[in-house]
Amino acid sequence: MGHLISEETRGVFVIAVTPFSSNGAIDYTSVDRMLDFYVAQGVHGLTILGIMGEAQKLTSEESLKLTRYVLRRAGNRLPTIVGISGASFNVMRDLAQVSMEAGAAGVMVAPATGLRTDDQIFNYYGSVCDAIGSDIPVVYQDYPQSTGVYLSPNLFLRLVKAYPRIVMLKHEDCPGLGKISTIRRESEQQGIRRVSILVGNGALYYPLELRRGADGAMTGFAYPEMLVQVFERFFAGDVEGAEDLFDLYLPLVRYEQQPNVGLAIRKEILHRRGAIASPVLRAPGYMLTQADKQELDRLMARLERNLQDGISLVESYHVAT
Amino acid sequence: MGHLISEETRGVFVIAVTPFSSNGAIDYTSVDRMLDFYVAQGVHGLTILGIMGEAQKLTSEESLKLTRYVLRRAGNRLPTIVGISGASFNVMRDLAQVSMEAGAAGVMVAPATGLRTDDQIFNYYGSVCDAIGSDIPVVYQDYPQSTGVYLSPNLFLRLVKAYPRIVMLKHEDCPGLGKISTIRRESEQQGIRRVSILVGNGALYYPLELRRGADGAMTGFAYPEMLVQVFERFFAGDVEGAEDLFDLYLPLVRYEQQPNVGLAIRKEILHRRGAIASPVLRAPGYMLTQADKQELDRLMARLERNLQDGISLVESYHVAT
Amino acid sequence: MGHLISEETRGVFVIAVTPFSSNGAIDYTSVDRMLDFYVAQGVHGLTILGIMGEAQKLTSEESLKLTRYVLRRAGNRLPTIVGISGASFNVMRDLAQVSMEAGAAGVMVAPATGLRTDDQIFNYYGSVCDAIGSDIPVVYQDYPQSTGVYLSPNLFLRLVKAYPRIVMLKHEDCPGLGKISTIRRESEQQGIRRVSILVGNGALYYPLELRRGADGAMTGFAYPEMLVQVFERFFAGDVEGAEDLFDLYLPLVRYEQQPNVGLAIRKEILHRRGAIASPVLRAPGYMLTQADKQELDRLMARLERNLQDGISLVESYHVAT
Amino acid sequence: MGHLISEETRGVFVIAVTPFSSNGAIDYTSVDRMLDFYVAQGVHGLTILGIMGEAQKLTSEESLKLTRYVLRRAGNRLPTIVGISGASFNVMRDLAQVSMEAGAAGVMVAPATGLRTDDQIFNYYGSVCDAIGSDIPVVYQDYPQSTGVYLSPNLFLRLVKAYPRIVMLKHEDCPGLGKISTIRRESEQQGIRRVSILVGNGALYYPLELRRGADGAMTGFAYPEMLVQVFERFFAGDVEGAEDLFDLYLPLVRYEQQPNVGLAIRKEILHRRGAIASPVLRAPGYMLTQADKQELDRLMARLERNLQDGISLVESYHVAT
Repeated sequence: MGHLISEETRGVFVIAVTPFSSNGAIDYTSVDRMLDFYVAQGVHGLTILGIMGEAQKLTSEESLKLTRYVLRRAGNRLPTIVGISGASFNVMRDLAQVSMEAGAAGVMVAPATGLRTDDQIFNYYGSVCDAIGSDIPVVYQDYPQSTGVYLSPNLFLRLVKAYPRIVMLKHEDCPGLGKISTIRRESEQQGIRRVSILVGNGALYYPLELRRGADGAMTGFAYPEMLVQVFERFFAGDVEGAEDLFDLYLPLVRYEQQPNVGLAIRKEILHRRGAIASPVLRAPGYMLTQADKQELDRLMARLERNLQDGISLVESYHVAT
Repeated sequence: MGHLISEETRGVFVIAVTPFSSNGAIDYTSVDRMLDFYVAQGVHGLTILGIMGEAQKLTSEESLKLTRYVLRRAGNRLPTIVGISGASFNVMRDLAQVSMEAGAAGVMVAPATGLRTDDQIFNYYGSVCDAIGSDIPVVYQDYPQSTGVYLSPNLFLRLVKAYPRIVMLKHEDCPGLGKISTIRRESEQQGIRRVSILVGNGALYYPLELRRGADGAMTGFAYPEMLVQVFERFFAGDVEGAEDLFDLYLPLVRYEQQPNVGLAIRKEILHRRGAIASPVLRAPGYMLTQADKQELDRLMARLERNLQDGISLVESYHVAT
Repeated sequence: MGHLISEETRGVFVIAVTPFSSNGAIDYTSVDRMLDFYVAQGVHGLTILGIMGEAQKLTSEESLKLTRYVLRRAGNRLPTIVGISGASFNVMRDLAQVSMEAGAAGVMVAPATGLRTDDQIFNYYGSVCDAIGSDIPVVYQDYPQSTGVYLSPNLFLRLVKAYPRIVMLKHEDCPGLGKISTIRRESEQQGIRRVSILVGNGALYYPLELRRGADGAMTGFAYPEMLVQVFERFFAGDVEGAEDLFDLYLPLVRYEQQPNVGLAIRKEILHRRGAIASPVLRAPGYMLTQADKQELDRLMARLERNLQDGISLVESYHVAT
Repeated sequence: MGHLISEETRGVFVIAVTPFSSNGAIDYTSVDRMLDFYVAQGVHGLTILGIMGEAQKLTSEESLKLTRYVLRRAGNRLPTIVGISGASFNVMRDLAQVSMEAGAAGVMVAPATGLRTDDQIFNYYGSVCDAIGSDIPVVYQDYPQSTGVYLSPNLFLRLVKAYPRIVMLKHEDCPGLGKISTIRRESEQQGIRRVSILVGNGALYYPLELRRGADGAMTGFAYPEMLVQVFERFFAGDVEGAEDLFDLYLPLVRYEQQPNVGLAIRKEILHRRGAIASPVLRAPGYMLTQADKQELDRLMARLERNLQDGISLVESYHVAT
């Protein structure tokens, strides 16, 4: 059980892409390569079958097979969370159970589209917990831009009190800085269990969120080493240095965070960095234009240049201070 | 103060249209005629500056002038609620105060578009109550199809407990039958103040809603006499007779309840019935086609025929039983 | 190939529910019973794996198995359209090919959520046609209340001109009467291929839509015999009689057409009528309350009474005229 | 007429905030101060009554009075565009005419919420052009995140061909880089009039958009001097230098671009910089928390530091190359 996520989980859980061949089949060779890449960048964990993993484009069999495959390969090296969100509790339960049997660290559940009002959301998570069986750690995925379902700090605390199994918040509301502050403050003042908060939104607000009380990131930015280094600097006490490093990557963070086209950019960068054989999304999906690719050439070259200059600059600050 | 709405208010508050001339100016002569028409049909009250009153197309001056005009003419005959929903508390306060000084029975407020979560809605109404000044009875307009803001029964009861000024629910959620039942049951079980519930949705579920605990209707169906007669039959104990009468009108209720085009149909019927000089909406607005008008000819003729046959039929049932 | 749908297809294609056992498994015995029921009510065809068939709650394997099962049982008696909408062309292609090999009459495709602008929709259907392979008749499912994707008459005609495989419009926009009129008029004036239009929206506007140029209905109202009889009367020239019959059912049409709760009502009625063993939806789904069931008792009893009285009334009109 | 915007308009048109006193009244003294501030930062023009100007919270009288006031003070120094979007053509026409008589450079119109399909949008702009009278230059405000109305490149070119009065696109779609490229390429290939494109989205993609063919920015970032300097560097040929400068501000651009809270941040910065007396939004509006203000302290201090170090760094690159 030591590999399970808990309230104490911290670090960078990278949202894995799903690599495809040009005919649309899952490219398992690239899955291996991608896992090696993520390990090499130092990430602390993995999340598969997220929205950015194109989970909604996989058949149920493919989801089960990919889950088993990733857990077999990554399991020893990386604790892995499996996204199980879906329209049917039967299907969610099957995926949860297969995942946990194969060694997953927990499951992630977004509220179903169409849920309205605090009570509906509250009851939904109660039903999910009942449906998937006991002893499975659950991540609440709070991503209203995609689900249309909004979570107030009070409601989250109510969920935390009622369902001990919810041990983590995948925080992806926007704006969301105030939400982290409120949850941390109210949790402490009211003596409510403190859960893990990992942040998404492509890391656009990552250093600010760490200051607000986040415990790390859960996002798929194509340079996960930045996510790791910022985490390490920040928790080593070098708060400004963490943000300096982050800011060097911010132009690309912003670029990859564009709605709809962002995943194609992410996969293209991962492909250029050797992590996956083909950058293709399963159809239908955005395909980068020639102009996009040239833009990316420039932005990646600028990052290289800035890293060389900037890191020395960053270092000089902190030597000086 | 006897004319103010309260928790005890019952009956039919018709949502008034705003009559325009073909050049887009408010047609005050038709306002007079319309008020006479509504009085003649026996309605118990009036609501002006609703969405179906094209309030959002009026300037602030026009809203103030129309409000004063209607209240002067209708005030003695019909208690009148004024819709004050808007983006600014300053503007809402001015309209509320002018309305109440001119003799309004209360004001109606829909939650601002963009409110999310129970807490945001709860706080919004607190701020509204503070902003508009004390002693003004407030109607909560629950119309999520238009506002995108959802109200749970529990949240409504929380509002009722916190803000004594909220005396009425304009119920227009869909589906909404269960909401009425839950509010009535929980209100009684928890000993929470029972407020007035008047129903909208073009009256599409009116007799069912009365059985669930509604106190009447607040909608603008172009045959308001039906709304009144159903109300009277129902509360006289003739529940089935009320529904029989309603069902005769249901084809037109359904027709007028079509999104977007419904208001043009309503104004056309009111025009044909002599209540307003011109059926025109202030531009931009839907204009009936020739096919629409012929369809309406048929539906109105069918109603006439059904009323003749059906009412005797309805009567024969209830003589027999 | 004679069983395939085409531009000439007319009649009532009932949207089949998917029967479940209380444990959430597909109840194949009830599938048989339901097919017998639909045949006995005289429907002309069947549509499976629609939104109201809870398709989104089935795994890919379940969808394939159910499709093969229904087509084996119903194939000879009822031409069957299979809904294949999904997030992945790979998955859609597999389902389309399995369906057609098993004897389906065609496939139905809704535009993917998130498509915007005429060009995006146009290109999407081109890609779908390419992806699923040639010679498969396609139904465009126009249901913007669910998909958020809007189809203008001009765009539909552009699609009809470009893709000969689109032979039918499942019309479910609301308001949508004007759209039917415009498509029929423009199609004729511009000499564009006339396709089949079957209407949905729970049949709420059915007789009006037939007058506007629809060729029948594709919806799952729990009294499909009404849909059939209205169709037959209408095309036999008894336009008013068709509408008289429809109006007798309108209170229940309206009741079943409530968003979110409508499917639970439909399954309850089908259960009461003996068509399926259990009314349960696959979780999560709405469950009728005691108040709902009593309401339905009344509405069904009122329908029985009205049918007895009303049909003789309907008949007397048309004897007299 | 020389002050009117046209297809050739280039530069930075800053979206002006509307300064309020703590009681919610428009603070005209701050309007003066703000205009001086914008002039001092070198902006080329002004846009008032935008969404970020809280236009929707003003009464019609306030809008007219503010428009006249700003045009009298700014008119000679800054060409000014007036946002006239609204629900009523009557109201829009009055505001347009008052604006132009008072010396405005043009008007900006967003498509009405609820428009769907290319044809509806196309016809809407035809009606707007008819309604407001001839000879008024019109900016198409393309901001689907707020309006829910999507504009394809083809539709925009169709509008440009049909309505000579549309001389500018306020580009605020996201993702939107491809749209600019497509409009520029198709416009050239098809020989369609080239219009001005100014970009919004808080400038988040500004240097990329300039490379794609934009002519400047129309946004209200609280450091408008950056917008001006990037514009000048870029069009002087120093493309990389423009982006280097931009990137120094990107952490604050990103921070101010947060939905819902962004305007409060913008006003706070403008207040701190002395441009307006009070940072308050007209209620209801977001109020910065203590944590927000401390965060802003840090981010503004980091900008100062980076500007000192970074600009010399930027300069050293371009001396070297």
